[in-house]
Amino acid sequence: MHPTLHAVKPGSKAGIAKIDPSSTPGFKGDRDQVRDRAEKELADNTAAIAALQERLYAENTRALLVVLQGMDTSGKDGVIRHVFSGVNPQGCHVTSFKKPSENELDQDYLWRIHQQIPPRGEIGVFNRAHYEDVLIVRVHDLVPKGVWSARYAQINEFEHYLAANGVVILKFFLHISKQEQLERLRARLEDPAKNWKFQAGDVRERQFWKDYQAAYEDAITKCSTEWAPWYVIPADRKWYRNWAVSTIVRQTLEMMNPKYPPAPRDLHKVKLV
Amino acid sequence: MHPTLHAVKPGSKAGIAKIDPSSTPGFKGDRDQVRDRAEKELADNTAAIAALQERLYAENTRALLVVLQGMDTSGKDGVIRHVFSGVNPQGCHVTSFKKPSENELDQDYLWRIHQQIPPRGEIGVFNRAHYEDVLIVRVHDLVPKGVWSARYAQINEFEHYLAANGVVILKFFLHISKQEQLERLRARLEDPAKNWKFQAGDVRERQFWKDYQAAYEDAITKCSTEWAPWYVIPADRKWYRNWAVSTIVRQTLEMMNPKYPPAPRDLHKVKLV
Repeated sequence: MHPTLHAVKPGSKAGIAKIDPSSTPGFKGDRDQVRDRAEKELADNTAAIAALQERLYAENTRALLVVLQGMDTSGKDGVIRHVFSGVNPQGCHVTSFKKPSENELDQDYLWRIHQQIPPRGEIGVFNRAHYEDVLIVRVHDLVPKGVWSARYAQINEFEHYLAANGVVILKFFLHISKQEQLERLRARLEDPAKNWKFQAGDVRERQFWKDYQAAYEDAITKCSTEWAPWYVIPADRKWYRNWAVSTIVRQTLEMMNPKYPPAPRDLHKVKLV
Repeated sequence: MHPTLHAVKPGSKAGIAKIDPSSTPGFKGDRDQVRDRAEKELADNTAAIAALQERLYAENTRALLVVLQGMDTSGKDGVIRHVFSGVNPQGCHVTSFKKPSENELDQDYLWRIHQQIPPRGEIGVFNRAHYEDVLIVRVHDLVPKGVWSARYAQINEFEHYLAANGVVILKFFLHISKQEQLERLRARLEDPAKNWKFQAGDVRERQFWKDYQAAYEDAITKCSTEWAPWYVIPADRKWYRNWAVSTIVRQTLEMMNPKYPPAPRDLHKVKLV
């Protein structure tokens, strides 16, 4: 039911430290040429996703949830712009989960997530998600270890329930190197059109790089399941990152193979005047 | 602050009966040629809207709300697909207001609308909206006349409040002829890929055509304001309808002229390692 490209096999270690963020498997040779090919295939994927999404919407029985996680500057916003612009926004809803509000903190951590699960017929994209509750929360000891360590199983059960109720789930870790992040933060400092994206917090969090990598390794290892697999996407090359995510989304929709619903009975008896 | 093309001047009668739904002002001559030109300009508008939306998102102080109303088959879904596919869905959220649920009916009629007002930095598109509460509600006497007739002023005040709080509002009436609706309903009956869109209710509502036109005339006349104008879009020709809506949306965003926010102070002092 799920594509295998870059998927972490359930029960296996994610092994993100051994995956080269600058690798571009399947794209060898002249850099400009392979990049051109990836961009053409991305455009082709976008058109295919838009057409499949229309059938998903018409079918109205299942939903697709795309979860995007990754370090600051890893390209979550970029993936959304490049892969999902072109999809009819009537059937595609993006939710960015920011620092929880005081009211949200008064609820269980999956409460605000559950509210944003895409309805039947739609694609939902989460820019960060409930995984923050085993990432930043763990790195900064925001709750005791006994609390966050129980969450992996809770998340698996929550996602299992969603999958059993028609929500197909894909989870992407956009994997960048520490050096690549440095260059992207520098661009935000130097390019006036990117200044607004710069947040002092990003520099602070960068100091916890190793802790975050360990937290991602655990979250991906413990929560890549048959019903909701994790994909580790080499993301230093933006063109490869966009190509890989769009290819996996397209393949998933092709496997789902949504169909226009059958015509209502008695349609031929309708009289129009 | 708002474009004038097809706008109903505040205080003037809408006069929709006198507006030809098949007219295509500004596009005279060979039909294929003008249609080609309109489609090229639509693509150009889409690219411009996407670029302006990015600045709107970065600026993060104002929102744009686009309200779409019209008879069944008038093209609300089509406008969304053709005008807003291509816009980054992270900053563009579509809400379809269907028949209210029992819980929604236990609230005042603007309650569910208010919840979906786009946040700062975003474009919100309403596929039907609070105007249903002076349209279908009026045509079918769902509440007493004294109740719905008080709503025009309430709606104007609600929209005035939103405008004063940074929400720029555009309201489009997609104006089709009764004959054109007949042809579009027939296509839904005959084309298997369109069967799913056919609803028996559409045929029933068609019998109330005149009542709906009268209700639209009043709603547009009473609620086209300086702060939230109505636009009457000739919509029998889909290409003209898409061109007109996209042109007005583009012009509005150009008038809003969103800007990247100034760089944070002390940005030059940031040290990256």
